[in-house]
Amino acid sequence: MDRAGALMAGAALELIHCYSLVHDDLPAMDNDDLRRGRPTVHKAFDDATAILAGDALLTLAFDVMARTEVHADPAVRTALVLELARASGLGGMAGGQMLDLAAEGRFEGKRALNENEIITLQAMKTGALIRFACNAGAILGKADNATRTSIARYGSAIGQAFQIADDLLDVEGDAKTLGKAAGKDAAAGKATLVATLGVDRARARLNELVAEANAALAPFGSKSDMLRATARFIAERKA
Amino acid sequence: MDRAGALMAGAALELIHCYSLVHDDLPAMDNDDLRRGRPTVHKAFDDATAILAGDALLTLAFDVMARTEVHADPAVRTALVLELARASGLGGMAGGQMLDLAAEGRFEGKRALNENEIITLQAMKTGALIRFACNAGAILGKADNATRTSIARYGSAIGQAFQIADDLLDVEGDAKTLGKAAGKDAAAGKATLVATLGVDRARARLNELVAEANAALAPFGSKSDMLRATARFIAERKA
Repeated sequence: MDRAGALMAGAALELIHCYSLVHDDLPAMDNDDLRRGRPTVHKAFDDATAILAGDALLTLAFDVMARTEVHADPAVRTALVLELARASGLGGMAGGQMLDLAAEGRFEGKRALNENEIITLQAMKTGALIRFACNAGAILGKADNATRTSIARYGSAIGQAFQIADDLLDVEGDAKTLGKAAGKDAAAGKATLVATLGVDRARARLNELVAEANAALAPFGSKSDMLRATARFIAERKA
Repeated sequence: MDRAGALMAGAALELIHCYSLVHDDLPAMDNDDLRRGRPTVHKAFDDATAILAGDALLTLAFDVMARTEVHADPAVRTALVLELARASGLGGMAGGQMLDLAAEGRFEGKRALNENEIITLQAMKTGALIRFACNAGAILGKADNATRTSIARYGSAIGQAFQIADDLLDVEGDAKTLGKAAGKDAAAGKATLVATLGVDRARARLNELVAEANAALAPFGSKSDMLRATARFIAERKA
């Protein structure tokens, strides 16, 4: 696989990620003033600028992904565009964010989600982009079905692990290290597995998911050490 | 060219158009309560829903455009994705909307735009999507360069014509026929060619652009009668 092409595909994904942060930080959404230790876009500029900047970043993601630099084969590029759109749209990140706002009681009164509903919501809201990051490698490398299945399994496990680690950080971290406000989930009464299971059971689940991610990598042997390190980093990060 | 594929590509464009209306109507942007005679999304629901609905529509546009139903050849689909992203992103619609807000004096004080600046802004804000609608046909039909140039010339002319007609309607129309508020441009002190040239010269320019659009269609003879009717409709529409 061409390394420069993979980096371009990664850049397209990062554009989606950035747009989602800019829009989610808006007053009408999560109303955050701080992001990566700096003022959020609507604080530094204004809401209109943040809305348009997000729209432009989202659009640029598909511009970048469709370029020949990503892969010489246009069939690979359309597959990536389609997969990225599915991961970030109504059935993925944007839909998950909408369910999250609904669960917070924005629309028709607050409703506590059960464990399975939280897992579904998080699989859409944050899991879909992480799974895409993994699956995109398989698409770029024109991997066979068995390889795709292994990579999808790994992506699904680290996606869930990421969200639990993030929710644990919100409970246990501080704003200075995080570069964003802490304790916001509990204040908003947000549905998280940490709130539902408690810190100890959530941490046990996190460790299970890292083991599951490593198991999925077994067919690749030491070639996948970087992915093993990534799973460990997700579980152990402090910010 | 496959008619069903062309309709799918048109649907993708219409998703972009819808997202732009939903976001532009937001209080932080143009703050419109009425659209097509009905409450705007943020009025019927709330701002968060309108932001996410717009994001999801924008993302779905690229999902639809990348599908095999649009065209069997993935090279055609990636060309469409790329062209749509360019038309709707920073160098097109979203960038034009940002320039428009800047011209209204949102950020650093109001600044009157001259005729050429207004033409540039409008070529980005509304012209780019109309040009895309035309160019997409040429891409789908794998047209030769001469044909592409003729179609691009037609698209550029009707794009400019559309904006002048729209600005004239804002001056001369009424909310009931328009299905949206009238007189908003003048109230906002918005930069339009109608404000700069006056109604009579603007109408003369509109007629020139329709003639230019028809001239661009000359190589196609009567096959392009529908496009001639479209140019006439743009100039003469009342709503």
